[in-house]
Amino acid sequence: MSWTRQHFLDIESLSAEEIITVLDTAKAFKQVGERAIKTVPALRGKTVVNLFVEPSTRTRISFELAAQRLSADVINFSADASSLKKGETLKDTARNLEALNADIIVVRHSASGAPHFLSRFLKSSVVNAGDGAHEHPTQALLDTFTIRERRGEIAGLKVTILGDILYSRVARSNIWALTKLGAKVTLCGPPTLVPRVFEQLGCRVTYDVDSAIADADIINLLRIQHERQRKTMFPSLGEYTSLFGLTRARLAKTKPDVLIMHPGPVNRGVEIDSDVADGARSVILEQVTNGLAVRMAVLFLVNRGKEVPAGKAATLTV
Amino acid sequence: MSWTRQHFLDIESLSAEEIITVLDTAKAFKQVGERAIKTVPALRGKTVVNLFVEPSTRTRISFELAAQRLSADVINFSADASSLKKGETLKDTARNLEALNADIIVVRHSASGAPHFLSRFLKSSVVNAGDGAHEHPTQALLDTFTIRERRGEIAGLKVTILGDILYSRVARSNIWALTKLGAKVTLCGPPTLVPRVFEQLGCRVTYDVDSAIADADIINLLRIQHERQRKTMFPSLGEYTSLFGLTRARLAKTKPDVLIMHPGPVNRGVEIDSDVADGARSVILEQVTNGLAVRMAVLFLVNRGKEVPAGKAATLTV
Amino acid sequence: MSWTRQHFLDIESLSAEEIITVLDTAKAFKQVGERAIKTVPALRGKTVVNLFVEPSTRTRISFELAAQRLSADVINFSADASSLKKGETLKDTARNLEALNADIIVVRHSASGAPHFLSRFLKSSVVNAGDGAHEHPTQALLDTFTIRERRGEIAGLKVTILGDILYSRVARSNIWALTKLGAKVTLCGPPTLVPRVFEQLGCRVTYDVDSAIADADIINLLRIQHERQRKTMFPSLGEYTSLFGLTRARLAKTKPDVLIMHPGPVNRGVEIDSDVADGARSVILEQVTNGLAVRMAVLFLVNRGKEVPAGKAATLTV
Repeated sequence: MSWTRQHFLDIESLSAEEIITVLDTAKAFKQVGERAIKTVPALRGKTVVNLFVEPSTRTRISFELAAQRLSADVINFSADASSLKKGETLKDTARNLEALNADIIVVRHSASGAPHFLSRFLKSSVVNAGDGAHEHPTQALLDTFTIRERRGEIAGLKVTILGDILYSRVARSNIWALTKLGAKVTLCGPPTLVPRVFEQLGCRVTYDVDSAIADADIINLLRIQHERQRKTMFPSLGEYTSLFGLTRARLAKTKPDVLIMHPGPVNRGVEIDSDVADGARSVILEQVTNGLAVRMAVLFLVNRGKEVPAGKAATLTV
Repeated sequence: MSWTRQHFLDIESLSAEEIITVLDTAKAFKQVGERAIKTVPALRGKTVVNLFVEPSTRTRISFELAAQRLSADVINFSADASSLKKGETLKDTARNLEALNADIIVVRHSASGAPHFLSRFLKSSVVNAGDGAHEHPTQALLDTFTIRERRGEIAGLKVTILGDILYSRVARSNIWALTKLGAKVTLCGPPTLVPRVFEQLGCRVTYDVDSAIADADIINLLRIQHERQRKTMFPSLGEYTSLFGLTRARLAKTKPDVLIMHPGPVNRGVEIDSDVADGARSVILEQVTNGLAVRMAVLFLVNRGKEVPAGKAATLTV
Repeated sequence: MSWTRQHFLDIESLSAEEIITVLDTAKAFKQVGERAIKTVPALRGKTVVNLFVEPSTRTRISFELAAQRLSADVINFSADASSLKKGETLKDTARNLEALNADIIVVRHSASGAPHFLSRFLKSSVVNAGDGAHEHPTQALLDTFTIRERRGEIAGLKVTILGDILYSRVARSNIWALTKLGAKVTLCGPPTLVPRVFEQLGCRVTYDVDSAIADADIINLLRIQHERQRKTMFPSLGEYTSLFGLTRARLAKTKPDVLIMHPGPVNRGVEIDSDVADGARSVILEQVTNGLAVRMAVLFLVNRGKEVPAGKAATLTV
């Protein structure tokens, strides 16, 4: 188990071994979450700043709880009330947080690459909590953690990601994580939202939902972001549900032990039937629980990574 | 002193003995608040989430401070920035918080019954911080605590609640608490806001303010919510003040040791004269201080209640 | 080193010795910020409330971190979501916070004198985090701290404050602090924003920027608040930059060891060239770091001041 990185920016640049390190560390932290006292002193006296330039209550709360359970101090900094409105650049905002001795800056931003940009000049650790349509690496790791916990081994599994692939940072990060660990990934959805170019990432692309789900071990549904979905991408929500929604009828055609995943928040009756979301095969709430453990692992590791001499891997004991 | 409940939803379903348990526990916690170090480790490593779907700074801060003083980690989740805006159901939001290992979820919601609904499926404890026009049980207990601290015994006291009874969750919870403990409750206000049906709860209803306050031991004034008050309920604020406001002139006609209460925020010059609010008989700020102790007690008790085997009462020592 | 004040309201009423006490205390706390564990138990079990009636993310976060590092519990109370909107007076809001046992209330308000007003009746300590166009005393002390750390001694230094002096609480507080410690202060900017009346505070006023910066040891640039600047004060941002902006060309005409300061957020290309802001003479980010130490010192001192018998100075060891 080894980790030398100061920042946690994406899955694309991680090795399979590094991904496994995060998952193993998260496993240890998940056990902490099951104790009566869920706090460990790993980051006592450290400051974690949630710099959320794009709003996200769920991910922010998950990181906030993860930091609290590591005994860190947490500051929430949202764009709404911030100097960014007064014309300050993102770089200046981040350097100010660094000047306040922030040890870790968790960044959510609507611009792809924003965390990478910040990581180039900050001494604070930068953690990507979702950047534009690029990556959402902790989401991919919590998905992978959930699959691994349920199935033991990722290699060889057939994972179908269903929905809006084109604009989804969740899909991109999942594709990287799953293919690095040896899973076979199928992408499915409306042709406007699932371009063939994704085949270059080693995925199968299909527009036939029945074939996409028939032999899948895992089906990961993406949220249809109907509050901001591009009008031109598909005719209507009803049409989407009819063609690609995971209905009870479609579930009947899947493997009996298929796992149903969804990053949330769920649109019941749109991309998934309500009783499928709540059914025995759904691991949607397990994903939420595992997200906390994965984020504790990431915060813990980047903090250690910062303290490790360059080029030398730290051996970690949680 | 005994408590076996996992949730704290309303006063209606509590026994007098349970109410006394909360008040006695709060008394112990009030003493903690007077020490130089006001923190106790009772909920260390536990997570309290304030799920406020209807805004309320005062009650939220009181619960936040109460949780901090019990050494819990606190997360604030307000509807404004939340997934609820993206169409997620309240049930899904709450189950997500539970999946994040929230031990206690404090709920404020504009819909009556929202906390009861959540309590039916959550393993987390649910605490009602005000639901619609239904109940605001911690407010009633802090009012009762204040009366008890000042007068020793609730039974036999004459309490007049004055103002908008119809739409007031504070009034409903107070009526339950006071009548269970043996007080005699009089309701007074404009006939449009004080329907006779409240007599079925064991209260006296009168529209004659002089008779309502003449022999009262306690006068509890309700806030006229003029920013959202239904226009058709009374002609004007000035008319309300003239007919039902607790002016200096009216105060002169009350018992010399009457206690003046108000849940806040106070509309000075509307339901109460400014110098009556600040006068020697007013216990309005004591109510605020006592609210903290009562909320500490409630958080403490529901956490214990969750850990007690069903059907068996825990003996508590604070 | 002595301090007997319960409140921290302005620089105007402080003696030079008191200013030095804050700076010396801050120096000790700055060293704490450089440790791996940046927390000290000085305010454990105490409650600090940030009562920000005027929004300010930067100052609020600085105070929040300062309080956290002293192990205090922190509550953020912003006007947006508060009872103030429901017509509650500032006095009632503050007395409610006091009733919740708030030990220290940090106030930012758009009205000059708001913290002084609150200090007249609160038992909680009041700290001024900026009041109208009056004072921003912690900003002045962090500026002074930064100068002192770099130059050793304030007395005799030539400090030029450049920009909107008239509406700037930062300027006012800096003038008081610097002149009390023996610096020579020059004010410069458009005549509409730098009235001659400031000469009565012991400052030199000039509208000739070249003369203002030529022999300055420190140039403190004020932010042009273009989002709310009075339209009639100067013709355009471009004209301001051309006449008073600290460009590379102007920097070449200053002393080689001049220090460039700015309270932030910086308008790059308006009051300062981007590479001047990032250049070797700029101490802008040091100011941010020092702000944390100064605010820790202020919170620490007012808490001690409250516990000291009136008329008797406490000897402090940090």
